[in-house]
Amino acid sequence: MTLPTNLRIAGDRLLWRIETLAKIGDTGDGGCRRLALSDEDRRGRDLLVSWMRELGLEIRADRIGNILGIMPGETDGPAVMLGSHIDTVATGGRYDGALGVLAGLEVVAALKEAGIAPKRPLAVMAFTNEEGARFQPDMMGSCVWTGALSVEEAYAAQDGHGLAVGGELRRIGYAGESEPGFLPAHAYLELHIEQGPILDAEGGGIGAVMGVQAITWLEFALDGEANHAGTTPMSYRRDAGYAAGRIIAHAREITRAIEGQVANAGQIAFEPGNVNVVPRRALFTMDIRNPDDGRLAEAERRLRAFAEATAGEEKVGLAIRDLARFPAVRFDERLVEAVEAAARTFDLPVRRMVSGAGHDAQLMARIAPSAMIFVPSVKGLSHNPQEYTAPHDLIAGANVLLAAALAIANG
Amino acid sequence: MTLPTNLRIAGDRLLWRIETLAKIGDTGDGGCRRLALSDEDRRGRDLLVSWMRELGLEIRADRIGNILGIMPGETDGPAVMLGSHIDTVATGGRYDGALGVLAGLEVVAALKEAGIAPKRPLAVMAFTNEEGARFQPDMMGSCVWTGALSVEEAYAAQDGHGLAVGGELRRIGYAGESEPGFLPAHAYLELHIEQGPILDAEGGGIGAVMGVQAITWLEFALDGEANHAGTTPMSYRRDAGYAAGRIIAHAREITRAIEGQVANAGQIAFEPGNVNVVPRRALFTMDIRNPDDGRLAEAERRLRAFAEATAGEEKVGLAIRDLARFPAVRFDERLVEAVEAAARTFDLPVRRMVSGAGHDAQLMARIAPSAMIFVPSVKGLSHNPQEYTAPHDLIAGANVLLAAALAIANG
Repeated sequence: MTLPTNLRIAGDRLLWRIETLAKIGDTGDGGCRRLALSDEDRRGRDLLVSWMRELGLEIRADRIGNILGIMPGETDGPAVMLGSHIDTVATGGRYDGALGVLAGLEVVAALKEAGIAPKRPLAVMAFTNEEGARFQPDMMGSCVWTGALSVEEAYAAQDGHGLAVGGELRRIGYAGESEPGFLPAHAYLELHIEQGPILDAEGGGIGAVMGVQAITWLEFALDGEANHAGTTPMSYRRDAGYAAGRIIAHAREITRAIEGQVANAGQIAFEPGNVNVVPRRALFTMDIRNPDDGRLAEAERRLRAFAEATAGEEKVGLAIRDLARFPAVRFDERLVEAVEAAARTFDLPVRRMVSGAGHDAQLMARIAPSAMIFVPSVKGLSHNPQEYTAPHDLIAGANVLLAAALAIANG
Repeated sequence: MTLPTNLRIAGDRLLWRIETLAKIGDTGDGGCRRLALSDEDRRGRDLLVSWMRELGLEIRADRIGNILGIMPGETDGPAVMLGSHIDTVATGGRYDGALGVLAGLEVVAALKEAGIAPKRPLAVMAFTNEEGARFQPDMMGSCVWTGALSVEEAYAAQDGHGLAVGGELRRIGYAGESEPGFLPAHAYLELHIEQGPILDAEGGGIGAVMGVQAITWLEFALDGEANHAGTTPMSYRRDAGYAAGRIIAHAREITRAIEGQVANAGQIAFEPGNVNVVPRRALFTMDIRNPDDGRLAEAERRLRAFAEATAGEEKVGLAIRDLARFPAVRFDERLVEAVEAAARTFDLPVRRMVSGAGHDAQLMARIAPSAMIFVPSVKGLSHNPQEYTAPHDLIAGANVLLAAALAIANG
């Protein structure tokens, strides 16, 4: 089925909804602070629920606080779910998460206003605690929804003040009664800002997201010998800092040799940390990612081999510890094609891409065909008050969500 | 003149003096803590002065607290000075500094006991605050003695508790009346442990120290851009941490290419310091040294050129700040030869070497012919409770000091 002529989301109303939600937790510098299960999160949820009610949706909250607004289809059965989250990090922006949920509302509104009933039900979803800024793990609501985490484990998670998810959910009134996962999914679609610079740098347009790259976090500990930096000949040194420098520099070589590979040494410390003392210990982290599990494994193998060789040459001890490890997620090919087709409907440039960051969609992909739609982030900024996506891109993304959702719901 | 047959210092008494002084500030783990102008320093000074008195020396303290014990020669005039220091760092050993002062006492004692009066006066010196562990600058007493620092500047220096050198000198009773530099020097000789691994690794013996290497301390600040470590393609990054790693690794290449060059990156920090954020800022220090000023300048030029090229490639800002800069010191050739000749008198292996660390002798070299005698430090350890020099090496070094001092005093 093709899109009914002139069916569009109400762009101005989408922008108004984004601005209105952004006032809750407004940090005054363009940013937003709506930490999961805080008072601001409660007020944001209340606003969302009031909007769902205005649209005549059936509103459900599950035990982990995921909120669903369900629009019936011509037939019962699995729903096409349009979701994201409305919590933010402490220094968040106004678009990360909020766009996907509010655009979902406008998809439903556009269909209702056009008198179109899709064949399958639609459900607009807001997942609890996607950011993980207050409670770990992140993507908590989608983890619980998909069975990757039990409700009890999630309830027990505490913030820095010892407050637990279970208590905070009850406090803000969003510990619902529905079992997580109660609504079967025909498909899951998530519209999100890219949070990276590619679309912005490439002239804008739509990203048809094929998957989420694999992530490995490693911590390297090098143990050498503290020595006088003036009196110790170079050949006698066992310099943990020098070895660290070589490994960090070499990681760039590995990214050049392996397609799609990125690497980052974000944390570092030398001990004892004196100008004139050879470091006896160097600790640093490596965040390595690749859309392909095999390529990431190869990058890790090369990084470890180089580190071992360097440690051997410098006669320093080497211990490498896993901090995190997530395999790559591949989205559903037919859904990716549906996103591309939807973009072409509006004559929007579209490019296939892989998400560098984690999203609820990667959990949903475990239980249903899933895909994501990206719109440009100016300069790639995100988790930052300067996070910005132009109004025409926000609206374009929502229209692509509308067209893709309708095609899938009717397909 | 050759050394009178069988003239030796009293080895057992030298070891006893070292052990006795080490009890003042004994840290219980083999180490010593006699911070400059502390109560422990006062008790150490009192012990030293009592020993000078027993030896019948004329005792003088100057305004900065340098202590001299003077033995008259056959003639008046400039003295041959045998010095070092008795203050330690917070986690010091028992030999650094103390050896040179106490061996000077034993030189005087050996001459007196043999009934030998040297042609020129001898003076045993203990300089105030060589370590700089409590008050900066280090080598304070010799700086003031040689005119490199005024008494007033030295008095104004404060420790971490706001206590000043002037007040602390008066408190412990060592603000003397003599003007610093009051006694003209014919020559200055300093016996010291090597504080490096060379003599120990090369089988022991005596080091005839030709000079002190040049030292430059630099701080590198690299300014890139914080970005998401997952979503930002490598080609878009301005990674201050990667640039730092490359420069630190490259410093080793420079040490391989330039004779006598050493380099150390001892301190480092990345900002913001998150595993998944590309460092927007990297700060690190470089301690580079070379016995030759020209070679050190060449090493610095290459380091700066590489840093600039790396910063340019990575599009990060670069600022390099001077933290310290000391030119090389060359000791007096005739004195170095006198040390070699003295070592040969005792059939001791002797090798010419350059000091990697700073010493009072480098200040004294500005006003008089100077040289140093090194004895082995086991494993090169120093500023460490495990600092150790074997008794036979301590005694051998003192005998070389005796023979060289007598040759110079009579020459």
